Amino acid sequence: MRHRVVVVGGGFGGLQATLGLRHADVDVTLVDRRNFHLFQPLTYQVATGALSPGEIAYPLRAVFTRDRNVRVLLAEVADFDLDAREVELRPVGEVEAPDRIAYDTLIVAGGSAYAYFGHDGWRQHAHEVKSLESALVVRSRLLSAFEAAEEETDAAREKAWMTFVVVGAGPTGVEMAGQIGELARDTLAHDFRRIDPRTARILLVEAADRVLGTFPPSLSAKAKQQLERLGVTVMTGRAVTGIDEAGVTIDDERIPARTVVWAAGVTASGLASRLAELTGAERDRAGRVSVAPDLTLPGHPEVLALGDMVRIGGAVLPGVAPVAMQEGRYAARLVRDRLAGRATQPFRYRDKGNLATIGRAAAVADIKGVHLSGFPAWLTWLVVHLWYLVGFQNRVLVFIRWSVSFLTHGRGARLITNS
Amino acid sequence: MRHRVVVVGGGFGGLQATLGLRHADVDVTLVDRRNFHLFQPLTYQVATGALSPGEIAYPLRAVFTRDRNVRVLLAEVADFDLDAREVELRPVGEVEAPDRIAYDTLIVAGGSAYAYFGHDGWRQHAHEVKSLESALVVRSRLLSAFEAAEEETDAAREKAWMTFVVVGAGPTGVEMAGQIGELARDTLAHDFRRIDPRTARILLVEAADRVLGTFPPSLSAKAKQQLERLGVTVMTGRAVTGIDEAGVTIDDERIPARTVVWAAGVTASGLASRLAELTGAERDRAGRVSVAPDLTLPGHPEVLALGDMVRIGGAVLPGVAPVAMQEGRYAARLVRDRLAGRATQPFRYRDKGNLATIGRAAAVADIKGVHLSGFPAWLTWLVVHLWYLVGFQNRVLVFIRWSVSFLTHGRGARLITNS
Repeated sequence: MRHRVVVVGGGFGGLQATLGLRHADVDVTLVDRRNFHLFQPLTYQVATGALSPGEIAYPLRAVFTRDRNVRVLLAEVADFDLDAREVELRPVGEVEAPDRIAYDTLIVAGGSAYAYFGHDGWRQHAHEVKSLESALVVRSRLLSAFEAAEEETDAAREKAWMTFVVVGAGPTGVEMAGQIGELARDTLAHDFRRIDPRTARILLVEAADRVLGTFPPSLSAKAKQQLERLGVTVMTGRAVTGIDEAGVTIDDERIPARTVVWAAGVTASGLASRLAELTGAERDRAGRVSVAPDLTLPGHPEVLALGDMVRIGGAVLPGVAPVAMQEGRYAARLVRDRLAGRATQPFRYRDKGNLATIGRAAAVADIKGVHLSGFPAWLTWLVVHLWYLVGFQNRVLVFIRWSVSFLTHGRGARLITNS
Repeated sequence: MRHRVVVVGGGFGGLQATLGLRHADVDVTLVDRRNFHLFQPLTYQVATGALSPGEIAYPLRAVFTRDRNVRVLLAEVADFDLDAREVELRPVGEVEAPDRIAYDTLIVAGGSAYAYFGHDGWRQHAHEVKSLESALVVRSRLLSAFEAAEEETDAAREKAWMTFVVVGAGPTGVEMAGQIGELARDTLAHDFRRIDPRTARILLVEAADRVLGTFPPSLSAKAKQQLERLGVTVMTGRAVTGIDEAGVTIDDERIPARTVVWAAGVTASGLASRLAELTGAERDRAGRVSVAPDLTLPGHPEVLALGDMVRIGGAVLPGVAPVAMQEGRYAARLVRDRLAGRATQPFRYRDKGNLATIGRAAAVADIKGVHLSGFPAWLTWLVVHLWYLVGFQNRVLVFIRWSVSFLTHGRGARLITNS
């Protein structure tokens, strides 16, 4: 029987691990509870109506259609049985996946989700833009807020509809705030008759003392400038202490706001904690499990974990796509090397740079110490993101949609659905 | 005060009526419960993953952004008060529209919905593809059926997952059956490891004795041939007598099938019945209200109704976009003529032809007695549909998506969401 590899998760890490094994002499089963790979760095663009879901998601089966040794399985992972070397599964919808699947090597890339700092009640009022479904909810809420403001007769209530709060000023928060700014000041500027969308208040709240904390301070300053040009009020060194249906509390200040987007801390997939429990590996406060420099779990060289659900030894790498992709490729190489009886060097992350976009021709980039901002950074961002979009068709479509949007200041996908 | 026109419905008829009044000396309020115009002839392509919602829907506000005399109002019509000349509204979501709006001229274009022949219990098992939301449900169900079949261990249950039934062989039913055929035999052909999607059974059930009853019999025969080439089993002269979770009953024959799409009879919007009640106008069995040849209601020259919720005198025009569009334009002209003191000729429908597509390079067309089928008909269909897609961006995107799909046999938007 051929060596059996089970890959859990069809995100950046799991996809690269599977791609790296498709020509190897192994049978791979890729398990995901979704039937598509999501280009997560762009979900915020779905949330603001700039892109359609189909443009940033690609069916997993379509990626591996020619690779007869790769099986895609729509199921959720319930648990691991490391002694029996089996993964326990739960069905998704009416798809009756097997209860257990056996592996010789297990690669777990479960990713992360947004954490609400223990305030799970905030979740229903402050949606995130990490999953496609949640991004569509944000899209409907954002657009409905302007509709509601247009018809509101009470001035205070109108102001609450016209106030948008983004919590967390990492790349996603900055991108989201910038896009809301563009939506209000540009796309929707002339669409209403009573309200003026350009008067919308957009607050970006961050507990740290600057935006984009993982970038050099000079680029944080540039990003802040570019945000302010789009009408975003940047509130750093301020903590959100309450969120409910009617607004947010920032430190002690109450701000009525009907639309809140959550882009603050993430927590590792629950699979990380489970692997820590089963192997005795360490786990940090964000729920990440510690793996060895070859991404394996203690006492289980046949089990690898990667992406933003792990830290390597004590080191936490940024929770971005390139890290997960490099780790995924490394995991595949490790499996191939072992089968060939070759040794593999420990994993080493090659940092190719850091990018965040803010709006039309506005972005910041830190590429191996070279700092860019404004149009050159935005152009870099554009090329990099188009390049990495999975699937030929999507790249072309997204390029055209962006070009048309750029020229016409439009956003074709601003639909209120499922409201 | 300027003459106030209220247009109910942002479909083909309402959109054209509003477009026809945007340069007139009137104030127009366009009321719809959606914030977008939907290019309904293509929703079935969303249902099969060929197009994304954003490509066939366009925000109403964006259409009228420069027309300061046009107000778009997100609300549902609750009732009409013809004596007071007011429309009563209900809020959509949290948008607090006014309770009533006054008009001098009222144009009602409420459209139609699918009717389940009095079997409302069928609705939850046999989804239609007329609304965007329902089309997305069909998309998830279609794609999930193949996923479920792949993992099914019982042969009879697998067969039920691999059986697809389309009820009704009008243009939508024919298009839908053809697209499922392509999906199974082409797009998904190599995507699975255990099942062979090409063995899927696709049944198109029609009570009449031929498909596309509104086309000439020779084209019905061509359409049937093209459907059969795509693996569709055409069952004419057969009536669906039962639909439940596990399958359909056709006459007395029970067919286990987990995916059923409804494309049979439509019924006029409830607004038609209400107008009939209020004005004493006649109403036919499909719920259409009879209007005069100038589209007005009896005793109420200031109230017009149009589209597939009306019949003109005793005549029922086909429920297609060109009819509604021409009637919408006529309604606008009537209003402009009245304000200018000019007489208007009665409405006359100019039949430009009839088109239905079946699959890749497969279609039928009846254009003023010229019958086309196969590639020439498909090319005509393509040009006509692209031409009428609202919004420059969408046309380009859809053209590219179709070109790429045609060349690569792919369907980029086959995502299972909200399942």
